[in-house]
Amino acid sequence: MTTSPHDWPAQLLAVQTVTTIGCVGLGTIGGGWAAHFLARGYDVHAWDPSPQAESRVKRLIEAAWPALEELGLFEGASPDRITVHTELADALEGVDFVQESAPEVLSLKQQLLADIDAAADPHIVVGSSTSGYSMTEMAVSAKRPERLVVGHPFNPPYLIPLVEVVGGQATSSAVVDWASGWYEHIGKSVITMDREIPGFIANRLQEALWREALHMVANGEATVEQIDKSIADGPGLRWPAHGPMLTFHMAGGEGGMAHMLDHFGPSLKSPWTRLDSPELTEELRNAVVDGCDTVLKQRGGKDLIAERDRAIIAIRKAIGEIRTGA
Amino acid sequence: MTTSPHDWPAQLLAVQTVTTIGCVGLGTIGGGWAAHFLARGYDVHAWDPSPQAESRVKRLIEAAWPALEELGLFEGASPDRITVHTELADALEGVDFVQESAPEVLSLKQQLLADIDAAADPHIVVGSSTSGYSMTEMAVSAKRPERLVVGHPFNPPYLIPLVEVVGGQATSSAVVDWASGWYEHIGKSVITMDREIPGFIANRLQEALWREALHMVANGEATVEQIDKSIADGPGLRWPAHGPMLTFHMAGGEGGMAHMLDHFGPSLKSPWTRLDSPELTEELRNAVVDGCDTVLKQRGGKDLIAERDRAIIAIRKAIGEIRTGA
Repeated sequence: MTTSPHDWPAQLLAVQTVTTIGCVGLGTIGGGWAAHFLARGYDVHAWDPSPQAESRVKRLIEAAWPALEELGLFEGASPDRITVHTELADALEGVDFVQESAPEVLSLKQQLLADIDAAADPHIVVGSSTSGYSMTEMAVSAKRPERLVVGHPFNPPYLIPLVEVVGGQATSSAVVDWASGWYEHIGKSVITMDREIPGFIANRLQEALWREALHMVANGEATVEQIDKSIADGPGLRWPAHGPMLTFHMAGGEGGMAHMLDHFGPSLKSPWTRLDSPELTEELRNAVVDGCDTVLKQRGGKDLIAERDRAIIAIRKAIGEIRTGA
Repeated sequence: MTTSPHDWPAQLLAVQTVTTIGCVGLGTIGGGWAAHFLARGYDVHAWDPSPQAESRVKRLIEAAWPALEELGLFEGASPDRITVHTELADALEGVDFVQESAPEVLSLKQQLLADIDAAADPHIVVGSSTSGYSMTEMAVSAKRPERLVVGHPFNPPYLIPLVEVVGGQATSSAVVDWASGWYEHIGKSVITMDREIPGFIANRLQEALWREALHMVANGEATVEQIDKSIADGPGLRWPAHGPMLTFHMAGGEGGMAHMLDHFGPSLKSPWTRLDSPELTEELRNAVVDGCDTVLKQRGGKDLIAERDRAIIAIRKAIGEIRTGA
């Protein structure tokens, strides 16, 4: 840990100089973060109020390690470079970044973030794994809310790349930028949001699917098994390669997303889910089409269809082997 | 084609004896079906009103063939075993099964299914690729609605295994059973539904996600790129292996789905999507938990976590190689 002068936030650490991470909360998410940090060669100083936390996180790391080895360990990476402390202040002594992964209870998060803020070096950034609260509501008891930022991972954090970064009203924009750069630096796929919305992005999308699924079960329209099969053997095979928007773009053939929206727009009015559809205004239509064009430009005119087909085959083969125990 | 006695439906063909398929409509879906049938070693007799249909479907088959070779061709499979006819009756002469994949226009489907029914041997089954209409509404003009059944594929039909099978009010249950067995026989992952609901199952689920995504774009809450990234690098990596329900079960740790529902049930009330949530009654809770248990039993106590981790790694590696052009 470099002790910085007090003209914060100009003196935020260069992400390359981070060596030690504070992990607060060692459940499935916090433990998964610890495994990810260890695999990247960091020292992890952890705290969790449960007496079972240390043995539990060590089992989790042990179970995750073969996967992490297969993805590639970084220099110095060791499952043993974690210390679990009984006092929060001891865990946070000298750390360069803190990832908070406490249970999703607002009052608990508020108090814990205030405690972390009070104990940790005032010049470091504190990320929260919250899956739904805004930093604006969580940071209310902290003295330095400007260095608190949401860094929302997906389970398991050592395998799923996505991290959604979003600040609260009091978060410094420099801290949002630093956190985005930091998570990128540690191999994450980062979405930096410019506003707080409940559930962020990915959770809103999967929650929409989840709610429709629950409605279908509630009405006897589909079983749990049918729901899983419908996604796993159906559209779920297309999404890892391109996401839902580019997938629809491809379904539009040569006309792409524009054709899809112009041709199938009316079916938005069909009772295909219980979620009311937005009005497909010219503005919305153009925003979606332009968004696809932007992504396509970034992908440099690659043959998306060939890419999709190769991805689906690879996924099907991999999952087939795994399911049959090959 | 075996000519059957007229005590239909007792004399439905054994699926193993099918040799020749009628493909009606040769767009992306119909052409994709043709490619799938050819790869399985069938003869395909096709019809499409467009003068460009023959050259277009041949290009589609040519483009799909390397993927089909990689998945494994069946005995006798050849991209050349397709004939494209200018008269519907010529195409349907002697076929053992018909797959209708016309554009999604109800009046067109109604007329075409009536024409197919009039032209095809009265003892064979006719499947429709419709992505949203019920067979009850499509079959109104046909003389033998009992042999018309929905067999809804996903694009591309030669790669995505899912087929949703559901009959209309006049469809014989023997035909629904036959179609399910037939699609299984040709390597499909079949969901047989016991009632008609708009959008079937998978489309309802992806439509819920799609509508939430459109709302987010409309409100400036997320870009197309962020939406795709959030799914492709996030929950989309978990769904191909286990689907959304079992994925949530795993997120519940040792308590599984029951823990998830009991613990996070209240968050269903959070404004995480615009879709109103169903009331989480005891009955719904138990239906979901029991459904997970059923699937888990079928999977024979395998280590789901290890399976998930291996799947995510395989998917990430495969997609990484594809994206970088390796």
